[in-house]
Amino acid sequence: MIRFFTAPQNISSKTIRLSAEDSKHIRTLRLRPGELFIICDGNSIDYVCKLGERDDNTIAEIVDKHKSHGEPTVKCSVYMAYSKGDRLDYAVQKSVELGVHEIILFESERCIAVPNDIPKKITRLQRISHETAKLCNRGIIPVVTSGGSFNTIINDAASKSDITMLFYENEEDLHIKDILEKSFSPESVSLITGPEGGFESHEVELARTLGIPAVSLGPRILRSETAPVTALTVIMYHTGNL
Amino acid sequence: MIRFFTAPQNISSKTIRLSAEDSKHIRTLRLRPGELFIICDGNSIDYVCKLGERDDNTIAEIVDKHKSHGEPTVKCSVYMAYSKGDRLDYAVQKSVELGVHEIILFESERCIAVPNDIPKKITRLQRISHETAKLCNRGIIPVVTSGGSFNTIINDAASKSDITMLFYENEEDLHIKDILEKSFSPESVSLITGPEGGFESHEVELARTLGIPAVSLGPRILRSETAPVTALTVIMYHTGNL
Repeated sequence: MIRFFTAPQNISSKTIRLSAEDSKHIRTLRLRPGELFIICDGNSIDYVCKLGERDDNTIAEIVDKHKSHGEPTVKCSVYMAYSKGDRLDYAVQKSVELGVHEIILFESERCIAVPNDIPKKITRLQRISHETAKLCNRGIIPVVTSGGSFNTIINDAASKSDITMLFYENEEDLHIKDILEKSFSPESVSLITGPEGGFESHEVELARTLGIPAVSLGPRILRSETAPVTALTVIMYHTGNL
Repeated sequence: MIRFFTAPQNISSKTIRLSAEDSKHIRTLRLRPGELFIICDGNSIDYVCKLGERDDNTIAEIVDKHKSHGEPTVKCSVYMAYSKGDRLDYAVQKSVELGVHEIILFESERCIAVPNDIPKKITRLQRISHETAKLCNRGIIPVVTSGGSFNTIINDAASKSDITMLFYENEEDLHIKDILEKSFSPESVSLITGPEGGFESHEVELARTLGIPAVSLGPRILRSETAPVTALTVIMYHTGNL
């Protein structure tokens, strides 16, 4: 069923007022008065609605309400270093499909592609998150933010989740499975992945001093946009969300 | 270390004769005589080589030989329906990074984008597989082929592997974990994923009559290029290859 998000203030007890943009989208999709669709409040509640008369501020009549089906039981925060080209576009889209909770971008030593205009980049990635969340059945729109430097995010990540891991291509002994087998059902996980050239060893050491282990994703070299999505997939599988 | 593939007939006991193309690549990379690099025979053996004199048919001197580190213990065949735009490019690249053994493309009922020139498409995807295999440390170049129709590939897949699964978005009860928990360490797995619109129910039924279960990848709707990569990631994790 077609799906939109709306801000909670647009929802009253029996009707929902759609934004001008979503009304326009509905006209494009040729939904007719009386047809059913879903409006999600972005807070994991889906409202099944019937379309009223179409105009620039379409009114939808609420016919049912339930918890969104698409939200995983684990809150996964993905920290990704800035990466070049459309790699972040890809990583954000796939992460939202797979159930990420939030995405935090950061600058690390070997980043070769920190955007000149970071707010513009974040706006673009947030739009990708929004569009993907609509299409893939999410109950929230995962927020994409800029976290600043590696030093800043690593301190943030250290205290945030039940499990935090930094993925490091030079780590050969400690695998993601070793970490997860000790924790059957974490409620929150933070994953930290580096830029094209990987992390500097002193960055890895700083993470270790904060109690964040450097973890391997196997013997094949994963591209910078592949690593976060791979780790996220594993978390979703491990926690019964696939 | 820089890595090339070569055909076994180019390998003698002490030296390897590089192709004109790889010689040219070496010149581009400004590798100097005496520098070390790896030539893989595409059959999971890596030869550590020292560069000889550079000319159009560079001769490399073999200094060491070992099993490639990048090959997983499980042979995973991924059957993907034709998909539009660059979705297959993406799916092939990520599958090779993650350790796929072979990729078979096929036409199913709801395919909206079967290429007019299939051999040209296969050539393009095979080149992506080759380039990715070099960069991500593989010991083979996974072969990309066209398998024909759904009916043809489903019969092929049914008898090929220890585990075969078809991923179906309308399946809600049987999850990939349910299948894998019954088989700790399969040696071969076949994964079958559909086009943008998913499979037709009669295709799913045909698979079932051949003993291939329809399996869910969770409550979120995964795009046609995301599903095979997600399933492959899970197989690699489950079998200890991540």
